[in-house]
Amino acid sequence: MRIAIDAMGGDHAPYAVVEGAIAAAEEWPDTKIILVGDTAVIEPLLQGKKLSNIELRHASEVIEPDDEPVKAVRRKKDASMVVAGRMVKEQEADAMISAGNTGALMTIGTLVVGRIKGIERAALAQMFPTIDGAGVLVLDLGANVDASPEQLVQYAVLGSLYRSKFHGLTKPSVGLLNIGTEAMKGNELTKAAFPLLEQAPIHFVGNVESRDVLRKPCDVIVCDGFAGNIMLKSVEGAASVIMSELKKEFMRNFLTKLAAAIVKKGMLQMRKKMDYTEHGAAPLLGVSGLVLKGHGSSNSYAFKNAVRQARIAIQNDLVRSMSSEISNGSEM
Amino acid sequence: MRIAIDAMGGDHAPYAVVEGAIAAAEEWPDTKIILVGDTAVIEPLLQGKKLSNIELRHASEVIEPDDEPVKAVRRKKDASMVVAGRMVKEQEADAMISAGNTGALMTIGTLVVGRIKGIERAALAQMFPTIDGAGVLVLDLGANVDASPEQLVQYAVLGSLYRSKFHGLTKPSVGLLNIGTEAMKGNELTKAAFPLLEQAPIHFVGNVESRDVLRKPCDVIVCDGFAGNIMLKSVEGAASVIMSELKKEFMRNFLTKLAAAIVKKGMLQMRKKMDYTEHGAAPLLGVSGLVLKGHGSSNSYAFKNAVRQARIAIQNDLVRSMSSEISNGSEM
Repeated sequence: MRIAIDAMGGDHAPYAVVEGAIAAAEEWPDTKIILVGDTAVIEPLLQGKKLSNIELRHASEVIEPDDEPVKAVRRKKDASMVVAGRMVKEQEADAMISAGNTGALMTIGTLVVGRIKGIERAALAQMFPTIDGAGVLVLDLGANVDASPEQLVQYAVLGSLYRSKFHGLTKPSVGLLNIGTEAMKGNELTKAAFPLLEQAPIHFVGNVESRDVLRKPCDVIVCDGFAGNIMLKSVEGAASVIMSELKKEFMRNFLTKLAAAIVKKGMLQMRKKMDYTEHGAAPLLGVSGLVLKGHGSSNSYAFKNAVRQARIAIQNDLVRSMSSEISNGSEM
Repeated sequence: MRIAIDAMGGDHAPYAVVEGAIAAAEEWPDTKIILVGDTAVIEPLLQGKKLSNIELRHASEVIEPDDEPVKAVRRKKDASMVVAGRMVKEQEADAMISAGNTGALMTIGTLVVGRIKGIERAALAQMFPTIDGAGVLVLDLGANVDASPEQLVQYAVLGSLYRSKFHGLTKPSVGLLNIGTEAMKGNELTKAAFPLLEQAPIHFVGNVESRDVLRKPCDVIVCDGFAGNIMLKSVEGAASVIMSELKKEFMRNFLTKLAAAIVKKGMLQMRKKMDYTEHGAAPLLGVSGLVLKGHGSSNSYAFKNAVRQARIAIQNDLVRSMSSEISNGSEM
């Protein structure tokens, strides 16, 4: 297995990327990790470690977080992210991982790697942590801000295939993100999508509300990229604010610090359960190659986890099996 | 001051409504509370208390939570919520409060009470709690699921007027809910609204992300009702899940219960800070009368708080002063 990692993408790149790559290379000797980026910067970070399954691929440019995606991908042909995408396209790598500019990665998925035949738009999918630990896959989270009802149906098919191929679920349940559970609720988009989802070859369970997402109302939630992104960042933001307020409370005096020590282990477990990085990176579904998006703030552990996820997807021949199911149009 | 309360609306009606009304009537003797609903049910709940400033108004019907809003308002002419709306329209009451069917209350606002001249659509606005305690007003939260760019501008004007008239803010800052902070981010709606907001007679500060809402990025956030509702319920849901997981952790054994006892006071303060009901009910802005929507799960304390809020709005002559500002088209 050969996994290309954009060494220059993410808030903590290249340090965290290289560290994660080393950890992954050590744990899985059968996997070749190809670090793509400025070798003059990456090489020293390997600190003389000569792991036979880490390889460097030089790329002279970097796509910055605030670069305009389409322009950047077209102009910076030797950017680390673009080079990694080309490696997937030309089958020099079985997967690519990047924590860089999301829009640029989506563009690379579509323009460089290419879409699966029959898929109109690729979607960014991510596992949300749920209290039972199982998680729910939400898509789209922003690959396309606007979506048509037909696109939501394709997202549902892609998400169902991912849950069954990657997680081994049989008949994964699909919900439509909406502002009420009744069938006729919603905006123009969800009202039009509802009857189409009922007829689609998936296990549609109706509307779900954002307040229930962490309680796992179903296995897959579909929504347009705008709504999905609002939900993702609302949940992240609320959790972060509550956790930092809690921390303040625990640091208030000697007694509260004692209380903190008592519940520390449980709190860490809870934090781990709510941690997005535990579920790995976000796959770009609908493209004809394995493209994984890491959270911008990914640390080395998150990069290692993304490699774990890529390995499972490669072992299950995820993309090829999704493509053939889509061209056969078979039932979920 | 005369405040009509729909005694039959909300998960804990009529008990919590009556209890809240009694508390409010006792605290503010200058305020007449008119409980609207089935007097045969309400009267016994007063338990013989003869408060001179509580009055009953019989209404023989009730709008149920799952009634189709427009149909229900048209057909159930003697429903408690409709009667309360008519009292505002006919100036028998200076304000109305209901925790019942949101859609029906919006319909009553528009069809029974009527819109302010020049306002295309009314919007449901609510204060979100923020860590600094000040709060941010978000609108629309679902009065209209879809919105036009021009409507978002009207929401911005309405929200700014509310913050300045009700909270006394000078030049309240207005943000546009979006999936990134850069000017060109977003879906078709937000991209079209952005330049209009820049030209509007408000203090526009650009795009804000849902992850920052609890950190108070500005004084007013505008969005379409679908996105606003997704954000509201995401934040509520995440907070509720985290709090219940915390509770579980604290109840695990003797030591963790001890820890819980130590931080209890601080946790309660934190909970209070994050509590929506502390900020009162959600005003329906853009209608030519004071209509307040209580959270479905409102307890007696929330109803009393809604009365407090209605009193302030009445004292400031909120609706009339908003109407005249809108017809004058003056700057915020």
